[in-house]
Amino acid sequence: MKHIQLDDLNEMSKIYRLNLVNSITGYKSAHLIGSQSLDGKNNVAIFSSVIHLGSNPALIGFILRPTSVPRHTYSNIKATGIFTLNAITKKQIKDAHHTSAKYPEEISEFDKTNLKIEKKGDWNAPFVKDVPIQMGCRYQNEYHIKENDTKLIVASVEHFYISESLLLADGWVQLDKGNIVAINGLDGYADPKLLERFPYARPKS
Amino acid sequence: MKHIQLDDLNEMSKIYRLNLVNSITGYKSAHLIGSQSLDGKNNVAIFSSVIHLGSNPALIGFILRPTSVPRHTYSNIKATGIFTLNAITKKQIKDAHHTSAKYPEEISEFDKTNLKIEKKGDWNAPFVKDVPIQMGCRYQNEYHIKENDTKLIVASVEHFYISESLLLADGWVQLDKGNIVAINGLDGYADPKLLERFPYARPKS
Repeated sequence: MKHIQLDDLNEMSKIYRLNLVNSITGYKSAHLIGSQSLDGKNNVAIFSSVIHLGSNPALIGFILRPTSVPRHTYSNIKATGIFTLNAITKKQIKDAHHTSAKYPEEISEFDKTNLKIEKKGDWNAPFVKDVPIQMGCRYQNEYHIKENDTKLIVASVEHFYISESLLLADGWVQLDKGNIVAINGLDGYADPKLLERFPYARPKS
Repeated sequence: MKHIQLDDLNEMSKIYRLNLVNSITGYKSAHLIGSQSLDGKNNVAIFSSVIHLGSNPALIGFILRPTSVPRHTYSNIKATGIFTLNAITKKQIKDAHHTSAKYPEEISEFDKTNLKIEKKGDWNAPFVKDVPIQMGCRYQNEYHIKENDTKLIVASVEHFYISESLLLADGWVQLDKGNIVAINGLDGYADPKLLERFPYARPKS
């Protein structure tokens, strides 16, 4: 096995190090975050850092980098308090990846891709149409991670929309039934297939 | 699409809600965390909440629930300052899942599964043998997430071990070449296959 230590990391090019550390840490979730500015401009941006924080209350988190592209997402969320989370499927990976391009604030990524806006009820943030999982989320808090000047954003989920075919009798959502992807590093998109579900683990005597 | 709102969540059984919210939020990384107590007992526990926090410095994070099983992992990390992160492959899913059983502290999960300890250099925490990615990590900080009384643990990565076949010329690690799995909810294990890697996204004119 190749052994890479701290000194080696420091000597790498920035791109090599970004590729290595972003991918070696494992698969990541794939979401489009939809948000709206106070004057009604719709924004959509890809995030690979959305995590499950808890089920009761239903809480998610995601990481914002100080220099990251989707700053418009953050300013919209701070201004309106809400956003949407939309699962990315095989069909959308090219358009989803393109939302990471640095467009000026007045340009909507919905106009530069084939991603379509779906409005639901009175939720003033755009959902992404034609995806099997959509969530309406409300900002709760943020934590500054001083070790690298990032932020953990914490949000509650108030609305879950799910294609019936993914939802099993015990509440478990089988993601591969919706062709939902996972992300490998900064730019790799993978298609997972279920291997097995295990029962709750109990100690062996 | 099925629409589930806050009131519906409150009326669900605990198990249904756990299954739903843990799985609807997307794929998760699959890691075994190895740790050692001050008196030398080795511990290994599965985590699905490990995330990439940053590349320079190389930082990861994971979430600890107040009532979660792997409390021994936390006490070992606090006592020794170090732990290991090991990618889970298709071959190990059954044993990896079994580490979530609630064994008393004096029982090592290495003795109750086919997972084997690998010692490397003078790193006083056990790596898991026969996996294509192993990392030696050092505790840096923790953040209390008051919204649901969980903790975000922040750690630096000091040692990366990787099978050469997964590491591409530009530093990107192709996880499916190592049969590394992703987790769907609390108990589902999925095998991702790479669909595509995209170039850095630039605005269309």
